Amino acid sequence: MHTFFNPQSIAVIGVPTRAGVGSFNNVETMVRYGYQGRLYPVNPKATEIYGRKAYTSVLDIPETADLAIISVGRDRVMPLFDECIRAGIKRVVIISQGFADADARGKELQEKIVARARENGVRIVGPNTMGLLNNYTRFTTGFVDLPASERFSPVSLIAQTGYIQVAEVDHAYLGWGKAIDIGNTCDVDFVDALEYFVDDPETKVIAVHMEGMKRGREFLETASKITLKKPIVVLKTGRSGAGAKAALSHTGSLVGEDAVFDAAFDRTGIIRVRDTADWRLAIKSLACFDEMGGPRIGIITVTGAGGIMAIDACEAEGLTLAELPAGLSDALRKGIPEWIHVGNPIDIWPIGMIGGDYPGAVNTALTSLLESPGVDGVILIIPAMTSPLHANIADLSGIVSEARTKTANRKPIAAFLYADEQKDFPNRYEEVEGVASFNSPEECVRSLAVSYQNYRMRNRRIPSPKRYTIDSALVESLVTEGRKEGVLIGDQAFKLLEAFGIPCVKSCYGSTWDELEQAAAEMTCPLVLKLAGSRFLHKSEWGGVITNIRDMYSLRTAWQTMTENVRRRDSSAEIELFQVQEQASGKELLLGLKRDRQFGHVIACGMGGIYTEVFRDISRTMVPIDGIEAEKMLRELKMYPLLAGVRGEKPVDMESLIDILERLSFLAVTVPDLSELDVNPLIVSDRGCRAVDARMLW
Amino acid sequence: MHTFFNPQSIAVIGVPTRAGVGSFNNVETMVRYGYQGRLYPVNPKATEIYGRKAYTSVLDIPETADLAIISVGRDRVMPLFDECIRAGIKRVVIISQGFADADARGKELQEKIVARARENGVRIVGPNTMGLLNNYTRFTTGFVDLPASERFSPVSLIAQTGYIQVAEVDHAYLGWGKAIDIGNTCDVDFVDALEYFVDDPETKVIAVHMEGMKRGREFLETASKITLKKPIVVLKTGRSGAGAKAALSHTGSLVGEDAVFDAAFDRTGIIRVRDTADWRLAIKSLACFDEMGGPRIGIITVTGAGGIMAIDACEAEGLTLAELPAGLSDALRKGIPEWIHVGNPIDIWPIGMIGGDYPGAVNTALTSLLESPGVDGVILIIPAMTSPLHANIADLSGIVSEARTKTANRKPIAAFLYADEQKDFPNRYEEVEGVASFNSPEECVRSLAVSYQNYRMRNRRIPSPKRYTIDSALVESLVTEGRKEGVLIGDQAFKLLEAFGIPCVKSCYGSTWDELEQAAAEMTCPLVLKLAGSRFLHKSEWGGVITNIRDMYSLRTAWQTMTENVRRRDSSAEIELFQVQEQASGKELLLGLKRDRQFGHVIACGMGGIYTEVFRDISRTMVPIDGIEAEKMLRELKMYPLLAGVRGEKPVDMESLIDILERLSFLAVTVPDLSELDVNPLIVSDRGCRAVDARMLW
Repeated sequence: MHTFFNPQSIAVIGVPTRAGVGSFNNVETMVRYGYQGRLYPVNPKATEIYGRKAYTSVLDIPETADLAIISVGRDRVMPLFDECIRAGIKRVVIISQGFADADARGKELQEKIVARARENGVRIVGPNTMGLLNNYTRFTTGFVDLPASERFSPVSLIAQTGYIQVAEVDHAYLGWGKAIDIGNTCDVDFVDALEYFVDDPETKVIAVHMEGMKRGREFLETASKITLKKPIVVLKTGRSGAGAKAALSHTGSLVGEDAVFDAAFDRTGIIRVRDTADWRLAIKSLACFDEMGGPRIGIITVTGAGGIMAIDACEAEGLTLAELPAGLSDALRKGIPEWIHVGNPIDIWPIGMIGGDYPGAVNTALTSLLESPGVDGVILIIPAMTSPLHANIADLSGIVSEARTKTANRKPIAAFLYADEQKDFPNRYEEVEGVASFNSPEECVRSLAVSYQNYRMRNRRIPSPKRYTIDSALVESLVTEGRKEGVLIGDQAFKLLEAFGIPCVKSCYGSTWDELEQAAAEMTCPLVLKLAGSRFLHKSEWGGVITNIRDMYSLRTAWQTMTENVRRRDSSAEIELFQVQEQASGKELLLGLKRDRQFGHVIACGMGGIYTEVFRDISRTMVPIDGIEAEKMLRELKMYPLLAGVRGEKPVDMESLIDILERLSFLAVTVPDLSELDVNPLIVSDRGCRAVDARMLW
Repeated sequence: MHTFFNPQSIAVIGVPTRAGVGSFNNVETMVRYGYQGRLYPVNPKATEIYGRKAYTSVLDIPETADLAIISVGRDRVMPLFDECIRAGIKRVVIISQGFADADARGKELQEKIVARARENGVRIVGPNTMGLLNNYTRFTTGFVDLPASERFSPVSLIAQTGYIQVAEVDHAYLGWGKAIDIGNTCDVDFVDALEYFVDDPETKVIAVHMEGMKRGREFLETASKITLKKPIVVLKTGRSGAGAKAALSHTGSLVGEDAVFDAAFDRTGIIRVRDTADWRLAIKSLACFDEMGGPRIGIITVTGAGGIMAIDACEAEGLTLAELPAGLSDALRKGIPEWIHVGNPIDIWPIGMIGGDYPGAVNTALTSLLESPGVDGVILIIPAMTSPLHANIADLSGIVSEARTKTANRKPIAAFLYADEQKDFPNRYEEVEGVASFNSPEECVRSLAVSYQNYRMRNRRIPSPKRYTIDSALVESLVTEGRKEGVLIGDQAFKLLEAFGIPCVKSCYGSTWDELEQAAAEMTCPLVLKLAGSRFLHKSEWGGVITNIRDMYSLRTAWQTMTENVRRRDSSAEIELFQVQEQASGKELLLGLKRDRQFGHVIACGMGGIYTEVFRDISRTMVPIDGIEAEKMLRELKMYPLLAGVRGEKPVDMESLIDILERLSFLAVTVPDLSELDVNPLIVSDRGCRAVDARMLW
């Protein structure tokens, strides 16, 4: 990847003969951008392009170029790519569109190119890409003429589009340090790019624009390691349309594609943002701030109203207002009337104006907040007016700098410099280390929330999942059966759960009354009678669940009623099998697994029974989990208070519930090709938990 | 109010003797802002201020000024205000701080001033205010020196702070047309300001910053009328801290202060925004666009990735992608390869570049979208690059203008003009009527969502609540009892509900077993036995609810168990009364009322029983409601599918449920001083609804 970002010589294949207005000549754009390496235009129709000797073929170039850029119609790419191979070039950017992005034929063309590349050890960025950007060496492969940023930040971009390079002024902080448009990712992809940036000293923050994902597991592994060192902030787009696929299980329908990304990002310490505005804000925060080590904010504000806005945002973002440092209130109250309130937010305007030294008051407050061990970050809401009449108080960047130097820590300071007509104050303040300016009180808060999130991600817990001893032969035979049938239900599903130590209710089957009677004789009432067999997947719609059966006489009545229920609904439906279970009483939970094609298994738990789809109260995370993760999943549920016991109810057996979640995670690890699993309901009470129904899909 | 915004002569009382840097001299700032009227500085310590004759007292001024501005220490305000009265001045802005904003003494001072003003027919803006701004006449009362906006929008601001005037460049679109800081609202308040702006031809949009509210009912009435003519967009801050008050009812705790504002704004057609960024976006959208009459969006984009971002935002904002107009696909496909996809979003870059006429393609697409009756608004995502090499395609504002003129409608066009280094493209595009530019694809979508919301607010339904015949004497006696006791529970509460036609379960009381037995003899089993009396407000914690009692024998057992339950928990607790009810079976709902001090009654319904506080699944709106509003409330609930019937269950008796909500609303109208009411649970089934427990508080 280093060569991709730092080529000394480049063959530009398919460059237009003409340069200037409307030509999109990328020899011209590269030169204008400031590229200092050797450029070889290749175009058989020209002898000279933009003042440089043009070559008929890449084979004629006097050296083996570090990089080739191909930009021709899709049908002409393959032969030119072959020539690159023959010329010994090992890195190729294919700009052309019309491959896997377009149609079946394009996909086929792309696959052929990839096969050839693999055979010859050539790496490709693209096709359908704008390619690479390196502001440190003023190198771009882009065909759009952009001014090279004089100032840029140590933020490297990985995107599935070139647009974010073009729209640098809209989405970057200052400018991208480096950028790669991975395009169709026929070869070089997120994982390659991440691996390069992790040890790149010129990269402090990695910004990712993602529409989809291949090599999900490798991505997660790589990202997990990186986020312990550098922040990754992802804008994942394409949230819609994903929910359209029909799911075969509750878990399948409750864990949509976007929820899988959430779970995956959360587990790997990736910061996910909602939209481009938040992305930009997060990028600036991460570029300018060190991590904020706690949630406690001190606010210095010239506007009380702005302070209230900041408080609202703190509540929304999970930050808190710090206690005022000891002595600060007294220091600020000196020489001002009794009725002026000093609190956090520190309303510095009346203090400063009536006290007669507004800059001094800001200095006192800021220094004290930075010094205080009870404050993790500071927000500064101050006017930066351009009027000559306010020249004496407009620019407090010197004071901020002084406070920073004095206190010698790097607590983040987020500043909202309002009324700044010329927009030149941010630069002055941002010269001070660890200071960044934002466009509103709320944005200041959000920037600190990102900084705190970065801290939490860097210091996150890595789960230590348990291993369990299982009867491998039994599991193997059940899984083989499941693979063959595509599904395990009823008794078979229970056996697999029990093999992993997940308790199930006692249950038996019979197709005639005599069989049922015999089986039920050994069970403890109350009992439940259910329809069994794949014909009746949604039993309750068939009147196929009768509960509270207190004796054998009632069981017989229930059996008759159920037979009648089915006949009434569809006289042709044959009941192959009935199931009798001991009735468990307690709260109904859903436990589930869903295998995502890219990322692997997601484990879910939440409200079960008839409320499952209504309230969709569910928490999800990636497999594997340990006990602490399992407990966290439970605590995240809205229904958690019901589990913990409301209104004098006993709490459910939490230990057993956590144990079951851990075992379910181990099941997923052990059976990696299991597609979906539902335990619904798992009945939980203060006397333990038992699965009442289960289904596995391959 | 007109005089406040358009004074011809002004007495400036307490103006500093000195002008220039650091003086905050508001004669100077007013003159610099461009005020053309007559200014009379009043300061006994000077003879001339900023080149104008200074007066010792307002009584010395040669005319009766239209307006006085007072800016002195709080203790000196009253005598100077008195002089204004004597001078015959009818409008006063009191800038000084330290009144109701500060302490008890300040509050007292303020009340005295208000009393004097009322006696003498003088109107006051403030105290604790920056006052007024009118950009049409270049008038400001502000003491901060700000450049007068050359360009401003017909947006008038009402704020509870001066900061938003100062931070015009941060929060306004171009500049505020007019603005008022109502400060402590000792006299002139939101209602006065709204009443002025409704008929003001220079006001197209009313932007409100609100922290709190007096005269809530008048505000709602005035706002309701205005929003049928002009949009009001409110930034309500101070969301936190409100939840702190302990509530005595479920409804009280579920309907927090912020939820009341939501309900009030929604009912009156006010657009509420979440933060300052959204506020600014909404203001620009409302200033630039006519209402968007539907949710169907057409997107023209140079970046596929940007199109996906817009789709994500559409889903989040409840907008939909329009079908491509008939014929447009064919028109765009002319002369381009088969593999280029044409859909909505219209990915115009490959179409334009490979087709050879990108501006022409944009023209075709835009004109067609504007012409199509199936499209309500358009988003344009195009680069606005500053490079001379792209001069031929950088500015398509001419094409947008042409399309607008051709199609002669005012469908909103939201443009994201990216890569615009100089930020001068927005002005060019916004010269076209109904075009506004925003900073991202998502912002474009949100701007159109605001425009569509404005349409819906303008054309909203006004409920037509029913009136019911009630036994007024009975109601009056019950209400009198409730007022006296502060609370009505049990039988009394049922009687009041029944007086309004709200059905309750049959119920009787007894303190001894004999009384219970006698009363229960006439009831239909199954029965429920409950503890009664105010000693046991949370019955279930006392083991004070026993259900499913099938006969008199079981009732006796239940009575013994309950007596034992209470004794075990607290041997000193005396049971005064037991209640026996016929047991209703069905879903448990909560119905409630809560009276907000400012806005009046909010009606609520949602999930009842033990899930009430856990899921907080509740919908709320202002009283009065009619049947359609009631149904809307039910449909908004997450649990609605449970009411409508899931998995083959019968739906509940929706008609009766709606009727009960309407009757509850009428109850609130009839008993305006009722503070809180809970019906929890109301049992609803396919056979009707019955209140099982109720409580009213005064």
